[in-house]
Amino acid sequence: MTLPRSPLAPPSFPDLPVIKGARFAAIAAGIKYQGRTDVMLAQLDPGSVVAGVFTRSATRSSNVLDCQTKIGLESDAGAAIIVNSGNSNAFTGKAGDGSVAAICAAVSDATGLPETRVFTSSTGVIGERLPHDRITAKLGALSDTLSSTGMKGAAEAIMTTDTFAKGASASVEINGDTVQIAGFAKGSGMIAPDMATMLVYIFTDAKIARDDLQKLVSGLNERTFNCITVDSDTSTSDTLLAAATGASGVDVTDNADFADALHDVFLNLAHQVVRDGEGATKFVTVKVTGANSDADARTHALAIANSPLVKTAVAGEDPNWGRIVMAIGKSGAAADRDLLSIKFGDVLVAENGWVADTYREEDGAALMKEQEIDITVDIGLGQGQSTVWTCDLTHQYITINADYRS
Amino acid sequence: MTLPRSPLAPPSFPDLPVIKGARFAAIAAGIKYQGRTDVMLAQLDPGSVVAGVFTRSATRSSNVLDCQTKIGLESDAGAAIIVNSGNSNAFTGKAGDGSVAAICAAVSDATGLPETRVFTSSTGVIGERLPHDRITAKLGALSDTLSSTGMKGAAEAIMTTDTFAKGASASVEINGDTVQIAGFAKGSGMIAPDMATMLVYIFTDAKIARDDLQKLVSGLNERTFNCITVDSDTSTSDTLLAAATGASGVDVTDNADFADALHDVFLNLAHQVVRDGEGATKFVTVKVTGANSDADARTHALAIANSPLVKTAVAGEDPNWGRIVMAIGKSGAAADRDLLSIKFGDVLVAENGWVADTYREEDGAALMKEQEIDITVDIGLGQGQSTVWTCDLTHQYITINADYRS
Repeated sequence: MTLPRSPLAPPSFPDLPVIKGARFAAIAAGIKYQGRTDVMLAQLDPGSVVAGVFTRSATRSSNVLDCQTKIGLESDAGAAIIVNSGNSNAFTGKAGDGSVAAICAAVSDATGLPETRVFTSSTGVIGERLPHDRITAKLGALSDTLSSTGMKGAAEAIMTTDTFAKGASASVEINGDTVQIAGFAKGSGMIAPDMATMLVYIFTDAKIARDDLQKLVSGLNERTFNCITVDSDTSTSDTLLAAATGASGVDVTDNADFADALHDVFLNLAHQVVRDGEGATKFVTVKVTGANSDADARTHALAIANSPLVKTAVAGEDPNWGRIVMAIGKSGAAADRDLLSIKFGDVLVAENGWVADTYREEDGAALMKEQEIDITVDIGLGQGQSTVWTCDLTHQYITINADYRS
Repeated sequence: MTLPRSPLAPPSFPDLPVIKGARFAAIAAGIKYQGRTDVMLAQLDPGSVVAGVFTRSATRSSNVLDCQTKIGLESDAGAAIIVNSGNSNAFTGKAGDGSVAAICAAVSDATGLPETRVFTSSTGVIGERLPHDRITAKLGALSDTLSSTGMKGAAEAIMTTDTFAKGASASVEINGDTVQIAGFAKGSGMIAPDMATMLVYIFTDAKIARDDLQKLVSGLNERTFNCITVDSDTSTSDTLLAAATGASGVDVTDNADFADALHDVFLNLAHQVVRDGEGATKFVTVKVTGANSDADARTHALAIANSPLVKTAVAGEDPNWGRIVMAIGKSGAAADRDLLSIKFGDVLVAENGWVADTYREEDGAALMKEQEIDITVDIGLGQGQSTVWTCDLTHQYITINADYRS
């Protein structure tokens, strides 16, 4: 099945800036898909640092486990990231570990990098042995075609059932010098038996120590990628890698402008993943304020964003605020029925434990017809707040995940 | 929209035994539905004890809050349970509290019972003021028509979007005497903006102290109604009341046969609720063994049973064991990829971190065509186990919850 481009997709892939010190290549290795690229290689110059965050799934893939053992190591040798689509190498037992080792060895041979500086990801079908020899056979050609302008091709090579390639960039002026940030992501279209893997790769020519970059990445991840949900299911392969080559010579340690720009790229890519959610026709922002803590606000917001009843109401353009009350009630975080207030966009829907006096059903219904829906809930208890992003739950989600089979 | 009877429904409503000391009546009060009954009254003779469990939702209805204040009180006065369908009286602010008070006062007037012995439930549309005067106006007629054979009528009166009335019974011989148990439930069909409220009422003529009945009911509830899930959304009105009239004269304190029989009735009704899940075409039993604890096993089982990807795979008759691995991985409870084993029915699908050597896709595919699907997972770590029941996630679920609006 070929899926149509999501109605929530941006009009086109953005022009990404060159990141000094980073080169990219993509190739068709025929792992599963035919007539398209399915492997990308990124090589980072000596002096680059790499930070990352990974799925916490107890059944995470061999690739993720391997990345986690390497991510904290300090090295000036440079680094490589290699990603294939078509096969996730997840739940492939000891054979999966062997595939990762074989790929790392081949990248090391082709690039001269130590194996500890090679990071791998795989995405696609689960439980089938990865034919890694098809990847290793292409490493010479990949290495020979590395290019500073190859990021778009890399973004395309890692797509599985994505309906569009996802890229984003930002630049920061620091004391007259320019630092560039660019990255790409894939997720979360899926067709049985593929997983909704989210993979994210972000590159900058900024100069920053690895631990500082890791701290920044971990913090930003909590406010961006960890605040999106399509269907509450978590992949065994989710990976975010961020590399700083230092090639701009601009030190960004503790620089707030750099952190803001990096946040923008994270958030942009996170939103694009939601915009490619299976069957999505609405982009939904759920903001919760007034909770006892930020953690409580997040619990409420995710309960709303993951509720099948809320998501089907959005799909049906139904201003069904009762389902939001239900989701808050079941979340487990503190709430008081009579202190809640709920808004759709700017329209106050409910307050004081009941529908608002000023609310007119036609106002709510009109707002629900928009493609972008804002649901705001004030819990009325404290200062905690959180924002999460999701999409609606439609017939197309069922079609993608139930009707088509391997 | 009139929903067709669920394909998973039992062939007919069972013949329920008379419960000595309990009488039932139902009437059409025109709260919302036309041309059908929508209020039921149960009256229990003096000496009856009542136990209950309730939703833990932070936004639970006025009725639930009122029941919770009364349930622990000891009294020999008898008791009444009154339930309406068509309006849930949930998120109706202080007006909702007033409706409950008005109904309790009217039941007290009609029956001579103290108001503290009147338990109420409401199910149906949320956020609309309950027209409780339509209920109170019928109390004379309800009280006049109470009958020991009225339980089927009562079961029908509390239906909202249920596609069939749900009843179950059991009897126990104790030292030559017979104790009867019978009950009924509603849930969990729903149409926007109704909630998937689950209401359960169980009656027995056994003799037992209130605290002992409460302990029994709370424990059985954990293994039955708290082990079913249709879509992970929790109602603001969920209520289970169990009453023992003592009229048989048979003391069942610490009697294991009685506990088993009561368990059977709980489980039967819980399964019927799943069998009426919105859009359900498959009845799924998820059994997890070998977890570090029973709680961990339950966490894994619910992660599987609530996963939209697992539920759509079942709907699509796809033996997609990778999604089960995913659900275990994300559950948060301990698991080790290489120790898992997964079965569909009797067919071993995966073990040792990979697809089983003996597994043939056609065997899995054949099993998934059945109407009753057993998924068994052994975590391989300890002795903890748990069983939960759910249904599949189909286009009809989306149709019911997104396409039809108030």
